[in-house]
Amino acid sequence: MNYKITGGQVMTYTNGVLAIEKRDIYVVGDTIRFTADETKDNFEVIDAGSCLVMPGLINMHTHAYMTIMRNYADDVDFDEWLFKRVMPVEDTLPKEGAYWTNLLAMMEMLRTGTTCFVDMHMFHEQSCRAASEAGVRGYIGRGLVGEDLYSDGWSRFSQAIEEKEKYEGDLLKFILSPHAIYSCGTKLLTQVVEESEKRGMLRQTHLSEGMNEVDNCRKQHGKTPVAYLNDLGFLSDHTILAHCVQMQDDDIDIIARSGSTVVTNPASNAKLGNGFAPVCDFANAGINVAIGTDGTCSNNTLNMFREMGLVSLIHKGVQRSSTAAPADEVVRMATVNAARALRRSGELGEISDGAKADLVFVDLTEPSMFPANNIMSSLCYSANGSEVKSVMIGGKFAMKNREYVSIDAERVRYEVQKMVDAYL
Amino acid sequence: MNYKITGGQVMTYTNGVLAIEKRDIYVVGDTIRFTADETKDNFEVIDAGSCLVMPGLINMHTHAYMTIMRNYADDVDFDEWLFKRVMPVEDTLPKEGAYWTNLLAMMEMLRTGTTCFVDMHMFHEQSCRAASEAGVRGYIGRGLVGEDLYSDGWSRFSQAIEEKEKYEGDLLKFILSPHAIYSCGTKLLTQVVEESEKRGMLRQTHLSEGMNEVDNCRKQHGKTPVAYLNDLGFLSDHTILAHCVQMQDDDIDIIARSGSTVVTNPASNAKLGNGFAPVCDFANAGINVAIGTDGTCSNNTLNMFREMGLVSLIHKGVQRSSTAAPADEVVRMATVNAARALRRSGELGEISDGAKADLVFVDLTEPSMFPANNIMSSLCYSANGSEVKSVMIGGKFAMKNREYVSIDAERVRYEVQKMVDAYL
Repeated sequence: MNYKITGGQVMTYTNGVLAIEKRDIYVVGDTIRFTADETKDNFEVIDAGSCLVMPGLINMHTHAYMTIMRNYADDVDFDEWLFKRVMPVEDTLPKEGAYWTNLLAMMEMLRTGTTCFVDMHMFHEQSCRAASEAGVRGYIGRGLVGEDLYSDGWSRFSQAIEEKEKYEGDLLKFILSPHAIYSCGTKLLTQVVEESEKRGMLRQTHLSEGMNEVDNCRKQHGKTPVAYLNDLGFLSDHTILAHCVQMQDDDIDIIARSGSTVVTNPASNAKLGNGFAPVCDFANAGINVAIGTDGTCSNNTLNMFREMGLVSLIHKGVQRSSTAAPADEVVRMATVNAARALRRSGELGEISDGAKADLVFVDLTEPSMFPANNIMSSLCYSANGSEVKSVMIGGKFAMKNREYVSIDAERVRYEVQKMVDAYL
Repeated sequence: MNYKITGGQVMTYTNGVLAIEKRDIYVVGDTIRFTADETKDNFEVIDAGSCLVMPGLINMHTHAYMTIMRNYADDVDFDEWLFKRVMPVEDTLPKEGAYWTNLLAMMEMLRTGTTCFVDMHMFHEQSCRAASEAGVRGYIGRGLVGEDLYSDGWSRFSQAIEEKEKYEGDLLKFILSPHAIYSCGTKLLTQVVEESEKRGMLRQTHLSEGMNEVDNCRKQHGKTPVAYLNDLGFLSDHTILAHCVQMQDDDIDIIARSGSTVVTNPASNAKLGNGFAPVCDFANAGINVAIGTDGTCSNNTLNMFREMGLVSLIHKGVQRSSTAAPADEVVRMATVNAARALRRSGELGEISDGAKADLVFVDLTEPSMFPANNIMSSLCYSANGSEVKSVMIGGKFAMKNREYVSIDAERVRYEVQKMVDAYL
């Protein structure tokens, strides 16, 4: 189906400039076109009159399957959270169930305008099925742990590659995902670098999230986690680093020189008591900063609108500056910066001629968006995510007028509830 | 109309304990009843099966009429914000227009579960008309400025009292509202204390919001703003202090001893670059803490769910503690603590036998609320406010299934837009 989207305000991206203009756009197949021969292709006309049409948000760090544990382990110490609450449940949940919990995540992401997510967890196959069926774009990463990719971690790595070959396509891509420096040995991390270079794959890891990690790394390796990973050749412009809260010494310079992207997760970092990442320092150092929600155990929502607001508000507060982390920059973090991290600039995270048609229709008549004095500000400071009316991904509607196109929401709730009753 | 609300989960408050239980409640007139003679009164049955029924949220500090300037002056310095953007517009807006901008505020408050608000601004009459028509409970305060309540401030004060006499009733109450120590003289502040004692009225003011205020107060009065107001007799258990970000010396002890309530406005304080109020220290000192959104120029939304999340996340981050500002305490701030500040404990902010029927129905099937592992956590960490399905105030529905009962939303948008076009 081809579409002509008319009458709305459109957030375009041209030569590095993010602008909001009243204009028509076309969708031909899975692609945005700024011009089209209306006599030639068959265009269904969409009246976007009361909407902003914006690029889909990109959630650069999450663990989608965790929705089953939403609000399950809150207001407790980190150790109790991870070792006594989250991990014991993870160990008992049936693999098949991850299909349903992933679908619940897709529901929440669509409701709040996310069209692409970068995931890390155990069950590739269930993630892939859920994202494909929901029509959501994903970068799927199996969390790798252990000392040696080909022995300890072998089963996970080989399965990860098998599943990549089986599922990789237009919507789904794969990313190598060693869990963290404290759960992966030096050898495994080096092997990941080699494998990702050989296969042309992106790599991601959790880094410098809490102070324990930093203290232990100094004891074990005599340097900060950032310096340690850099010395292993892990940092590069194909590398995505989640968290980076505890920046020490010349960590920020090292990351800047490497071209790695930092994904900030403000809700998760605050909620687990890790503090606030130095997001303004990253930006000043020229680091590409993107935004993630982390999983629903530590956030506890997958709402990128809330996360954008948090980035701006928290860093204005930290810097004691009303001009820090302005709306325009924060919207970039959730769109074009994310696409740059995924090495898909021009294709994802923007509305431009030739980009993928990942579009979010935001209802400007909602009280939080009205009056539309400054739409970029509205997205960052007053939107709550529920203003999203429709979502198109790769030229196909995944949610239309707040109805999911291919998810049976009632069935998803039924199946997830059954698991909650059995395992939590 | 009397109601029997059945099948839902209900957030009750009994002997100081906030609990969520599956139970029926009744609404008789404007009052909640835990038991009723079903054969006697005529009860309309409401099936709350998939909902949480909770007390309406109380927004303890806002400037409702400001919705016209939502997202109008963002990412600029404080001086530019106030003196070059906000105040010039305020000076030109027609008084009558405040009726429409207040109605827009009522729309947003209802959509996000606020049933009562404490306001401060210029046009009482328009606020009163809007709140009454929308069916929202309000504490209306005319911002007083100047040196002498009976000369400089006279017109505002006398009008405020006239309007109090005209409009005060079951839904609307009035509160004496000197703007701040830097816009009110010592004499006026003392007169406000006398008038509020004489009339049994509450008093509120902005206090210690930015560091300029503190520095100037030290220069002028040789003490902190808190000590200065305390020495004037302003602080009391009838006093509501908005902001209190810049706490110095023994400010916190002084407030604690006075019995005053602190209203924290985390979004506004962060967004204007004033920083984070020491909310955990307030709580530890035994101060009654409530929550406000401030106006839509500095927040930029009136969504108390977002504000609750911010209180918890920011203070967990500031304290570097995952157990700081737990969900249960934050929900109390937005409900029972607020009622205590208004000296209406047992009547507002709680679901108990005999309390006012100010009820919010929250849809637990929304992705952000599902699964309902811990509903108190959901309200604080994953709700975005749009889960509110219906709102009842004083036993009457003000919003039902997301439709306003007595606000013509389209007309409100039309009138506000007309003013935006003419004055902004």
